[in-house]
Amino acid sequence: MRYKVTLAYVGSNYHGFVHQINAITIQDKIEHFLAIIFQKEIKIVVASRTDVGVHAYGQVFHFDAPIKNIGQLKWSLNSLLPKDIRILKVELVDSSFHARFSVKQKTYRYLINCGEYDPFYEKRAFQKKYQLDYQKMLQVAKLFIGEHDFTSFNTTPLKEKPCQVRIIKEFKIEKKKQRYLITVTGNGFLRHMVRIMVGTLVEVGRHKMSIEEAQNLLTHPTKSKRRYNIDAGGLYLVKIEY
Amino acid sequence: MRYKVTLAYVGSNYHGFVHQINAITIQDKIEHFLAIIFQKEIKIVVASRTDVGVHAYGQVFHFDAPIKNIGQLKWSLNSLLPKDIRILKVELVDSSFHARFSVKQKTYRYLINCGEYDPFYEKRAFQKKYQLDYQKMLQVAKLFIGEHDFTSFNTTPLKEKPCQVRIIKEFKIEKKKQRYLITVTGNGFLRHMVRIMVGTLVEVGRHKMSIEEAQNLLTHPTKSKRRYNIDAGGLYLVKIEY
Repeated sequence: MRYKVTLAYVGSNYHGFVHQINAITIQDKIEHFLAIIFQKEIKIVVASRTDVGVHAYGQVFHFDAPIKNIGQLKWSLNSLLPKDIRILKVELVDSSFHARFSVKQKTYRYLINCGEYDPFYEKRAFQKKYQLDYQKMLQVAKLFIGEHDFTSFNTTPLKEKPCQVRIIKEFKIEKKKQRYLITVTGNGFLRHMVRIMVGTLVEVGRHKMSIEEAQNLLTHPTKSKRRYNIDAGGLYLVKIEY
Repeated sequence: MRYKVTLAYVGSNYHGFVHQINAITIQDKIEHFLAIIFQKEIKIVVASRTDVGVHAYGQVFHFDAPIKNIGQLKWSLNSLLPKDIRILKVELVDSSFHARFSVKQKTYRYLINCGEYDPFYEKRAFQKKYQLDYQKMLQVAKLFIGEHDFTSFNTTPLKEKPCQVRIIKEFKIEKKKQRYLITVTGNGFLRHMVRIMVGTLVEVGRHKMSIEEAQNLLTHPTKSKRRYNIDAGGLYLVKIEY
C-alpha cells in the first residue's frame, strides 16, 4: 500500500528534513519509528526538502508498506515522535501518487519582524530593526508574479536543472505594524528560491538595491551575482497541493 | 536612582522568575548581568512572581543603582541576556515607585488549543482534544467578574493572606475554531489564581463540574476542596498597570 502523510514541525532542532550523515534530521526520526511500527526498514519520499531550521505546517511524504489501520498509524507515530514533529493526516493513496512528482503547487510563508525583538519568535522569524520601504517591496513582489526564469534567484546549479523557469501564482506581503507576513505560491521552487526572493525584497526595502536592478536580475538570468539568502528560521512550508 | 524595567520572556527554560537554590531563574539571570554592568550587587523587586514555565509579554521589576544612560542600559542587558529574555523598556522613576506595591491592575492571558496538537505551541498552550461547552464557559467567566472572595480559587494559605477578596475587572473568552484565548484583568491575583479559574472553566466546559458548583465555591469560600490547577505553559502575564 502507498501511504500519504501530512505533517507539521518546528525545524529549529533538526538539520533539515532529508537524511544526512552525523546529523539528526526529520526524515531520520520518522523512518526510525516507521521501522519500529512496521518491523521492517521503510524509506520515505518527501515533497519538499526543507533546509536546516525551516518549519512546516503542511509538509507531505509518501512511503510503501503493508496495510495498517491509518487512524492507529497516525496515533502510534505521534506517540513515538518528539513533540516538535506532529503527524496531521495519514491517507491511503493510489500507487501512482508521488509526494514530489505529483505536486501541483506549493505555498510558503516568511515572517519578518522589524519591531522590538520578540523572544516568542526566536528562530521563527527574521528579526532586525530595519526601516523597510513597504511600497517598494510591494513593487518587487509584483515583478515575481507570473512565469519567469528564476536563475538569478536560487542556488540550484544550471548543470543540475538547466530549465529554471517557474510560475509564481501569488506573492503577497501583509504588513501589521512592523511585521511583514509574506506568502508565496508557485508551481515549483528551486533551492533557496523563497529565501533569495524575500532577501531581494528586504534589500530593495532598505534601498540597498533598486527596483530596476531586481527587474534586471529577472530579465537577464545569471548565477554570477551574489544574492542575499535570508535566514531559514523565518521560513514556513505551509501547503502542498496535488 | 530607581529604575523601572519592562520585559518579555519565554518561561519554558526557567524555574520561574524569583531566585531559587539550585535552579536557574529569570531573576538570577538579570541580577547576574546587572552586577556586571554596575560592578556591584543589585537586587531587583518584581511585580509578579511568575511560576515555572509561565511566560510574560509585560513583566515589570525595579531596582536602585547609580545613574546610567537608560538607552545604553537596555542595550547592554539585551546583549548579555539569553534571547528568550528581552528587555523592552528602561525608565527612571521616582523613589516612591514600587514594582509590586504600586500595581493598579494586571492582565493575564491563557491559551487553550482543543484542536490538532500544534508543535509551535509546545509549552506555550494547554493542548488537549477536549470537547468544551463554550456557552457554559462564558457563564462561569461572568461569575468571576466583580469583587469576590477568591479563597476557593487560589493556593495562597489564609494564614499568609487572610483577606482573599479581589476584583476581577475583565474575564473574556475568545474562541477561534478549537482555540480559546482567555484574558483576565484584576486588581490583584493570589497564587495560581488564574490557572485555577481557567481550570474551573475547563472543568465546567467538560461537564465535570456544574455552574452551580462553581458559583458555590465563590459564595462559600473554602480551601478544603481540591482545585484543578491547569498547566503553567498556557499562561502569559501580558500587562501591568500602575
